[in-house]
Amino acid sequence: MSEVRYVTLISDFGTEDGYVGAMKGIILNGASHARVVDVSHDIEAFNIRQAAFAVKNAAGHFPPGTIHIVVVDPGVGTARKPLVVQTSEYFFIGPDNGVFSFIYAQEGYQAFEIKPQVFGHPISSTFHGRDIFAPAAVKLLTAEPLSKFCEPAGEVVSFFEPLEKISDNEYELRVIHVDHFGNLILNLNREVWQRMAGNRTARIKLDRGFLVGIQDTFGSAPKGRLLILWDSSGYLQIAQNHGNASESLQIKTGHKLTLQLIDDEKV
Amino acid sequence: MSEVRYVTLISDFGTEDGYVGAMKGIILNGASHARVVDVSHDIEAFNIRQAAFAVKNAAGHFPPGTIHIVVVDPGVGTARKPLVVQTSEYFFIGPDNGVFSFIYAQEGYQAFEIKPQVFGHPISSTFHGRDIFAPAAVKLLTAEPLSKFCEPAGEVVSFFEPLEKISDNEYELRVIHVDHFGNLILNLNREVWQRMAGNRTARIKLDRGFLVGIQDTFGSAPKGRLLILWDSSGYLQIAQNHGNASESLQIKTGHKLTLQLIDDEKV
Amino acid sequence: MSEVRYVTLISDFGTEDGYVGAMKGIILNGASHARVVDVSHDIEAFNIRQAAFAVKNAAGHFPPGTIHIVVVDPGVGTARKPLVVQTSEYFFIGPDNGVFSFIYAQEGYQAFEIKPQVFGHPISSTFHGRDIFAPAAVKLLTAEPLSKFCEPAGEVVSFFEPLEKISDNEYELRVIHVDHFGNLILNLNREVWQRMAGNRTARIKLDRGFLVGIQDTFGSAPKGRLLILWDSSGYLQIAQNHGNASESLQIKTGHKLTLQLIDDEKV
Repeated sequence: MSEVRYVTLISDFGTEDGYVGAMKGIILNGASHARVVDVSHDIEAFNIRQAAFAVKNAAGHFPPGTIHIVVVDPGVGTARKPLVVQTSEYFFIGPDNGVFSFIYAQEGYQAFEIKPQVFGHPISSTFHGRDIFAPAAVKLLTAEPLSKFCEPAGEVVSFFEPLEKISDNEYELRVIHVDHFGNLILNLNREVWQRMAGNRTARIKLDRGFLVGIQDTFGSAPKGRLLILWDSSGYLQIAQNHGNASESLQIKTGHKLTLQLIDDEKV
Repeated sequence: MSEVRYVTLISDFGTEDGYVGAMKGIILNGASHARVVDVSHDIEAFNIRQAAFAVKNAAGHFPPGTIHIVVVDPGVGTARKPLVVQTSEYFFIGPDNGVFSFIYAQEGYQAFEIKPQVFGHPISSTFHGRDIFAPAAVKLLTAEPLSKFCEPAGEVVSFFEPLEKISDNEYELRVIHVDHFGNLILNLNREVWQRMAGNRTARIKLDRGFLVGIQDTFGSAPKGRLLILWDSSGYLQIAQNHGNASESLQIKTGHKLTLQLIDDEKV
Repeated sequence: MSEVRYVTLISDFGTEDGYVGAMKGIILNGASHARVVDVSHDIEAFNIRQAAFAVKNAAGHFPPGTIHIVVVDPGVGTARKPLVVQTSEYFFIGPDNGVFSFIYAQEGYQAFEIKPQVFGHPISSTFHGRDIFAPAAVKLLTAEPLSKFCEPAGEVVSFFEPLEKISDNEYELRVIHVDHFGNLILNLNREVWQRMAGNRTARIKLDRGFLVGIQDTFGSAPKGRLLILWDSSGYLQIAQNHGNASESLQIKTGHKLTLQLIDDEKV
C-alpha cells in the first residue's frame, strides 16, 4: 500500500475553474503514495470519442496498477452508471457512456458499477469527478475491496461496433473516430486482424479505386498519397501522408467502408 | 522536513514561454520533498476574480500543509504587497490584489508581507513568480520561520464585500463572480447563512418574480429553470439548469440583489 | 539510481490525443524514480524558436541531473538526427533542428546522436517522442552509458548566429526570437557582453534615434518607452514598457541591428 501508484486524469473541464485541482487534492489527500499525472483537460466539451481515443493512446504505457480516470460526462446527474473497469493491468474509472470503448475492444475486462451511497458524503448531480470518481480512486489506492463500493455492472456502453462479415472475403468496416490530423480510425485492431487474415492482405474500397496493403509508417507512401496503416496503439487507420484523409475523402465518423481480404500474391 | 509537501500553482502565464517551468524548477531545486501540482495556467490574463474562484474551489481538498501559489498579478512591479497568507491548514502565496478574497471570507487567517530584499538575489520588476513567490515557497518548504522573511501585512485587499443589512429580514447581496457556465456567485457562504437564517429560508428578488429556497443540486429544478443553490465549495449562487443564468438574467459581476429571509411555512 | 530524477517535457502536441500521456507512461514505467514535469505542450505547431526560448527560460532552474525533453519536430521521419545533449548540469533530448540553440550558445556541451536501432523496438516515422526520445530518457534514468545507444553527433543545427564584428566599436546584432509580449530577443548574452564591453556601454541604432544603456528592469523606462535590458535568463532584448516592441518598431525575427559600444561617460 505504500508503493507509488499513478493516477492519470483525462477530462473536458479545462483547468481555469479549479475543478481539476479539486480532484487532484482529493486523490493526494486520500492516498499519500498516489502520484497524479495529467493526460489531458483539453478534451473538447462532451467529446466522448476524443476522450476514448486519448485514453487508448496513453493508458497502456503506464506501470501496471495505474488508475486511469476519464471524466467526459455529458450525462452527469442522469441514470448512466459510474464505472470501475478492471483489466489485467489497470483500473479505469469514469462514466458508462463509451469512453472506454477501445479498452473493451482490446482485452479482457470486468466492469463494476460504483455505489456512491456507501461513500458517506453528499453526491452532487453536477460534479461526479469530485464526488464519485476521485473518491473511487482513493478507495482503490487504499486497497479497499471492490465489493465494498461496487457491484457488477452488467452490460456497458461502447461505440466500438465489431466488424460485420459480408462474405468469406469481405467485411464492413466502420470509421469510429477522426483524429485531429484527419486520420480515419477504424474498428479493427491488430489482434483481430491477425486471427482473421491468415496469409491474406487488406484491400479497402474507396469511391475511386482501392487502397491495398497495410503499411508500417506514413513514409511508406509518397507525399499526398493515402494509405492504410496501424495507428500508434494498433488500430487500423486510413491516413494521408502530409495530408488530411478525412477532408480528402470527405469521410467522417460513422462512415462504412468495405474491407476485402485478398491473396498476398495479387498485390 | 523530509515529508512530502505539495505546492499548487495557479497563474495567467500560459506555459509556452517556459516561465511556469522556471517556477517549478526553483521549487523542486530548493526542496527535494516538494511536489508541484498544476491547478491552472489558463486563467484569463489579469482576471483576479477567476483566479480567486479557482483557488477557492481547489485549495481545501489538498492535504494540510499544502502551499497554494497564485500569480495573477496585473500590478507586478508596483507597490502592491507580496503576501504569505496562513490559515489553519494551508499557506497561500501571491500578490495582495484580491486573489485570496474567498480565503479571507471563509476562515481565520494571518497575512504577512514578504520582504524579498532578504532573499539575497536581484528582484526583477516583471517576474515575481520566479523572484519572490517561488523562493518564498522554498523558504516555507525548508521550514524557515516566517519572521525571517516576512512582516505582518496589515490590511489586505479583498473584493469580497460583506452582506449589507437593509432591515431585519432583508440584505443586499452582491454578484462577486460569474463562472464560465454563467452561474452567478454571491457574497454569502453557508457558515454565514446558518448563523443568520435560523429557521428561515431565502428568497431573492429578480426583475420578474422571485427565487425561493436553496436547492442542493441543479437537478432540483426543471430544465431551463433558475434556482438558488450552494456551489461546490459552499457559496450561494444563482444558476440555471442546463442554461446560463448570467445571460438569461442579463446580470454581471458587481450587480446587487435583494435577499429576503422568509418563514419556511410561507414557501 | 534510486534518487529522484526530474524529466521535463516541452512539445507542440497539445494533450488531447493522449500522445504526451504515452510519453509520460513510458518514462514512469521505465524508471520508478523519475518524476515528470510539464513545461509546455502549447508550443505553436512546428515553432522551433518558441520551444528553444521556453527550454532556455526553464531548464537552468531545475536540479542538476534533470533531463529536458523537447519534441517540436517538423522533420520527424526525415534524416535529421535525434540528439542527447549533455551540459555540465543537464541532459537535453530532442531533434537536431535548432531547439537547443540557446543551450549551445550559453555553455559547454557535448552532442550525441541517438542510435534507436539498438532499442530493439520498431521506430515509427511519425512519433519519435514515444519511440526514441522517451526511451532515450529511460536509458539515461537507468544509468545506461551514453556510448551504448549514442555516437558523437558532429556538428549540430543552431539558429543562434554569433555577433558579427563590423568595426572595433560596432557589431551586427540579430533578432533571434520575438516573445509573446513582443520583446525582441537578441543574439547576445551577458557573458559574451561582459567579455567584449569592458567599461563601455551599449547603444543600438534604430530607424529613428538610438537606445542607450542596458537597464535592469522594465520599470527603468517610463510607460510606452523602448529600452534595452537583459531578459530573465541573461539575453539582451529590446522591450517597450507596457507595450509591444515588435509592433512599435515593425521588427521581426531575423532583423539586423547595429550595436555600438560607447564610453560610459558619453551616456
